[in-house]
Amino acid sequence: MSLVPPPPTPSSLSLSPRWLLGPGPSEVHPRVLAAMGRPLVGHLDPEFLTLMDEIQDLLRYVFQTANRLTLAIPGTSMAGMETVLVNLIEPGDRVLVCINGFFGARMQDIAERAGAQVTVIERPYGEVFDPDEVRAALSRMGPKVVAIVHAETSTGAWQPIEEIARIVHEAGGLIALDAVTSLGAIPIEIDAWEIDAVYSGTQKGLSCPPGLAPISLGPRAVEVLNRRKTKVRSWYLDLTMLQRYWGSERFYHHTAPISLHYALREGLAVVVEEGLEARFDRHARNGRALHAGLAAMDLSLVTDPNHRLPQLTCVRIPPGIDDLTVRRRLLQDWGIEIGGGLGPLKGQAWRIGLMGYGARPSSVTLLLAALETCLRDLGYPLEPGAAIQAASAAYAEAGESVMP
Amino acid sequence: MSLVPPPPTPSSLSLSPRWLLGPGPSEVHPRVLAAMGRPLVGHLDPEFLTLMDEIQDLLRYVFQTANRLTLAIPGTSMAGMETVLVNLIEPGDRVLVCINGFFGARMQDIAERAGAQVTVIERPYGEVFDPDEVRAALSRMGPKVVAIVHAETSTGAWQPIEEIARIVHEAGGLIALDAVTSLGAIPIEIDAWEIDAVYSGTQKGLSCPPGLAPISLGPRAVEVLNRRKTKVRSWYLDLTMLQRYWGSERFYHHTAPISLHYALREGLAVVVEEGLEARFDRHARNGRALHAGLAAMDLSLVTDPNHRLPQLTCVRIPPGIDDLTVRRRLLQDWGIEIGGGLGPLKGQAWRIGLMGYGARPSSVTLLLAALETCLRDLGYPLEPGAAIQAASAAYAEAGESVMP
Repeated sequence: MSLVPPPPTPSSLSLSPRWLLGPGPSEVHPRVLAAMGRPLVGHLDPEFLTLMDEIQDLLRYVFQTANRLTLAIPGTSMAGMETVLVNLIEPGDRVLVCINGFFGARMQDIAERAGAQVTVIERPYGEVFDPDEVRAALSRMGPKVVAIVHAETSTGAWQPIEEIARIVHEAGGLIALDAVTSLGAIPIEIDAWEIDAVYSGTQKGLSCPPGLAPISLGPRAVEVLNRRKTKVRSWYLDLTMLQRYWGSERFYHHTAPISLHYALREGLAVVVEEGLEARFDRHARNGRALHAGLAAMDLSLVTDPNHRLPQLTCVRIPPGIDDLTVRRRLLQDWGIEIGGGLGPLKGQAWRIGLMGYGARPSSVTLLLAALETCLRDLGYPLEPGAAIQAASAAYAEAGESVMP
Repeated sequence: MSLVPPPPTPSSLSLSPRWLLGPGPSEVHPRVLAAMGRPLVGHLDPEFLTLMDEIQDLLRYVFQTANRLTLAIPGTSMAGMETVLVNLIEPGDRVLVCINGFFGARMQDIAERAGAQVTVIERPYGEVFDPDEVRAALSRMGPKVVAIVHAETSTGAWQPIEEIARIVHEAGGLIALDAVTSLGAIPIEIDAWEIDAVYSGTQKGLSCPPGLAPISLGPRAVEVLNRRKTKVRSWYLDLTMLQRYWGSERFYHHTAPISLHYALREGLAVVVEEGLEARFDRHARNGRALHAGLAAMDLSLVTDPNHRLPQLTCVRIPPGIDDLTVRRRLLQDWGIEIGGGLGPLKGQAWRIGLMGYGARPSSVTLLLAALETCLRDLGYPLEPGAAIQAASAAYAEAGESVMP
């Protein structure tokens, strides 16, 4: 025995304090962290089944839906993306994917692996789609499913969805929505907008740890699911079985990640206590303050003001400034994490997240002060304190104190 | 806004204390629970990348392997099963699945969804395969992959693997091993036995919460992976990408479930501190004591003594005793969870788990005392105290005190 020797006994887990102000994970709410440390009950324990029901009700509220098939997939947001696509798609189905950033491209890859004939329409990083161009694509190819991103995490673009959903339905298609970065941060109304299928994650606007993917399917999507001629390609993500575990039958499918469910329930309870409208207002106020501060530093954003998310801001790195030098210093000196650019924006942009619990004045103020210090030290000409003043003014205009 | 009203503000999370003595999840080690409550760092933070490296080294120790491709899949054990199968299988491949319980049947389903031509050999629940019958099947159909379960969670059967691995290689095939219920509880030596691919879970012998699936692929399996002609059917579980995230490239694939990685690292550190041999001895001692106690109650086990796992015991429900009546009372009066039977054993057997942190005399003693009380109250003739005496004698024989 023990042919392979053990590694040196690991020291105890050593972790530096961090301000998670990147594209996610966001800072986990202290109540959620406390829930994670609770001892486990079994995944078929009556108390756990009650907790699953509660999570479904709470998710229906944040998704603004009455959809029965609303549950949490036992994987990260990318598992949510795959779940929605592989359950709706059968080999040979025509799928239209709208790509205006990094995550749209992933939907294309997943749809192709599910056997779809994929058509793509594209917009440059940072832009959003116009309903007319979606209509034109629909008339050319008549897809079964149209996949589109609500809040592009790679660019900070806020895609209007309601009219696009309407024209997809007029063309007889289903709309599948990526709400990974929108859920809990900006308005999303699954029933009012008639979204057929949506997926998200827990580690952004909900301020829970990553590891679960909330999803919801409406009546049209459920009908497509129930009428499938072939088995879903993924066993693990097969909603025909998962809905039986989350439904009254309690059919055993997998051993639910118990602790992550504790976390999700607690994170959703925090959302209910705050109220969705108050929560969206808070994200909007903090986003405006951040944007005002960045503007005062003469930094420009990748998205135009009409389609700019408050919770994820993609800011162009100014000429002569090195991406990694700044991000490393933010992390080392202040414990601040922001994100780098993805795809064509790699090295060209930073991504700043103000999501869930992290969307508060202390985050904005600290980040602006630290970034200004970094840039000034690197020789970038900035008036000291201008960013903080601009952010403070934005908060004052919103009637909010800036006490961190 | 807020068309769908919020549910009543949830009360705080109310959970009863439980003894998790079923087939999993097992009781989480207190040090692991504490790790779960730690604030998050980002999934690309240098400190998190170091932690991923540590987890890989620790997993190599518990798997007894030097395999580079050793990592934790961001999903439960069932995601581990799907990962191993979909990465090794391309459409049309011949696969042999050995089914002697509930989980073998799932491997068949997953292999078929991956496009394999599946051949099955079967053994009744509770039995194990003989190398000769595997050899005969190999000569009939020459599979690319042979899938087999090391420790059947549905029956408690302990399948000898080493010789079967050898004859699979002689026939030019790969062996894929389900080690969900074996890892950390009974010896498993991936390199010495030349296992090509293995998957497990965190929620059994490692006493971590469910939600991650440790896997390891050896050189032959990696070669098959790298020579694939088609893309892996699952994007989320595609090891050609996952190995680039866990490797030096740190290619972004998904947002790792940070807290579950904290838990896994801590759970593995506990294993290293105890040492694998001591850990296996502890499981063996506690399993023997349980089996002695059950025998003293005249209860019979589903497996024969030569292939009986210490960490998962499948015991026949005696005539005239109702399954649910007993399990409900154990849960309500003592907070003890044991498992029901699966498949043909539903209503016919109970499954008792002594896994990881749960494999200790207090668990065994409490369970035997509670079960004896239940059965006596239901009119089943038992000599009071006989089970505890038998278990105590077994512990004494092993030189262990029975102080809980």
